[in-house]
Amino acid sequence: MTALQSRRIRLTIAYDGTRYCGWQRQENGRSIQQEIETCLRTMTREEISLHGAGRTDAGVHAEAMVAHFDCTSRITNSRFLSGLNSMLTGDIRILVAKTCPFDFHARFSAKGKCYQYHLCTALIQPPTRRLYSLHVATALDFPSICRCLILLEGKHDFQSFENTGTRDKTIVTGRGAVRTIHSARILTADSTHLIVEFIGDGFLKNMVRNLMGTLLEAGRGKICSEEFAEILRAKDRSAAGPTAPPHALFLKEVFY
Amino acid sequence: MTALQSRRIRLTIAYDGTRYCGWQRQENGRSIQQEIETCLRTMTREEISLHGAGRTDAGVHAEAMVAHFDCTSRITNSRFLSGLNSMLTGDIRILVAKTCPFDFHARFSAKGKCYQYHLCTALIQPPTRRLYSLHVATALDFPSICRCLILLEGKHDFQSFENTGTRDKTIVTGRGAVRTIHSARILTADSTHLIVEFIGDGFLKNMVRNLMGTLLEAGRGKICSEEFAEILRAKDRSAAGPTAPPHALFLKEVFY
Repeated sequence: MTALQSRRIRLTIAYDGTRYCGWQRQENGRSIQQEIETCLRTMTREEISLHGAGRTDAGVHAEAMVAHFDCTSRITNSRFLSGLNSMLTGDIRILVAKTCPFDFHARFSAKGKCYQYHLCTALIQPPTRRLYSLHVATALDFPSICRCLILLEGKHDFQSFENTGTRDKTIVTGRGAVRTIHSARILTADSTHLIVEFIGDGFLKNMVRNLMGTLLEAGRGKICSEEFAEILRAKDRSAAGPTAPPHALFLKEVFY
Repeated sequence: MTALQSRRIRLTIAYDGTRYCGWQRQENGRSIQQEIETCLRTMTREEISLHGAGRTDAGVHAEAMVAHFDCTSRITNSRFLSGLNSMLTGDIRILVAKTCPFDFHARFSAKGKCYQYHLCTALIQPPTRRLYSLHVATALDFPSICRCLILLEGKHDFQSFENTGTRDKTIVTGRGAVRTIHSARILTADSTHLIVEFIGDGFLKNMVRNLMGTLLEAGRGKICSEEFAEILRAKDRSAAGPTAPPHALFLKEVFY
């Protein structure tokens, strides 16, 4: 009898975060991680732990979250894909399941992420978009938002946009709140549907939503780009704007 | 004291049909018509009746349903708009409220309608689209579907696509099941998102969903366009394919 061989499997996962308390397993509330782990444990009868590329807040969606798990099961990858999708509810879909090397780690191997924040500028928001975009009823000053977005690009200490006391101190990266944003720009899906896209090497807890809350203040004329630059330099969360709602935010891609 | 003056108000309404039993008021279940009527009665304290341009089935959505009602209330149109939108849940939105002549009737003045049926051809359907498009997992023969769509254009007796016993016999139009389809075509939203659009002078009960069910059989190679033509000529519901699911169907526009 040969020893059971272990392998590492990488999943790409899309989800509608509306009904969930976020990616991460929690005492109270249903999480994406837990839903998938429960199915994996049922399928394999092993104590599977699923490791995600990062956490997403309650209500945040993902087009392509990446996660990995180890198992000794002989279930094929395509059976994992079809089995998980038949067990999970339609608001979580496994897009890809493939074997990866053991030195691949969904979180520590990640080189960057892309987040998109959806805005609806229609006078009245179409009901079918209400769960996936933020309705901005008043006209926004988009040139002002763009001037602020340019300031974000590059390597900065983003403490002003980090919710205090939330950084995972168990990971000593030595970089504190310093992150590099490679690209921050506005994409146009259609005349009333705009997407603010952030690509960077990593994002602090609530960072995209805090950036959006502050960018919307610039869009509403409450602050100008010079003040936005000051907020960034302040390294003080209380200097920045409010946290924008989660339902308009999508984790678009994780880069490796 | 002057007599209260009556006026007729035309509403344009968008809704996410997911949670509703359809447009029309029903004994059991929540309908769009009833939700809006209830708000109008609360606002005006009058026994308002709301007349829609037509019925939509349970689960069908609308981007721009049109309806009218009469009232003697002094509430302005813009107050009706904001008041209704603040009372209604987010899955029903009033887009426009304006005074119209008394000879305007949302149903009898309608010259035509546009319906769109959304298909998702991605290998795995994105969770955020699951409530608004039909996932077609197998590759479809779109040229075959297009050949069938061309056959639909023009004036035909669409009995084969009408659910039996459902026509409203109180309206003697003299045209039976004869309707004119001005345009039937496929639009591409993106590489995995196709829209089958039907523009015509009127549609029988379940007609678009029955057409779609049969068109999908053509797309799956079960029937060819010659057989589709025979089904149309048969004037027999049992000759056609099944009724496609409602959640992918949108009433796009009503023409006057």
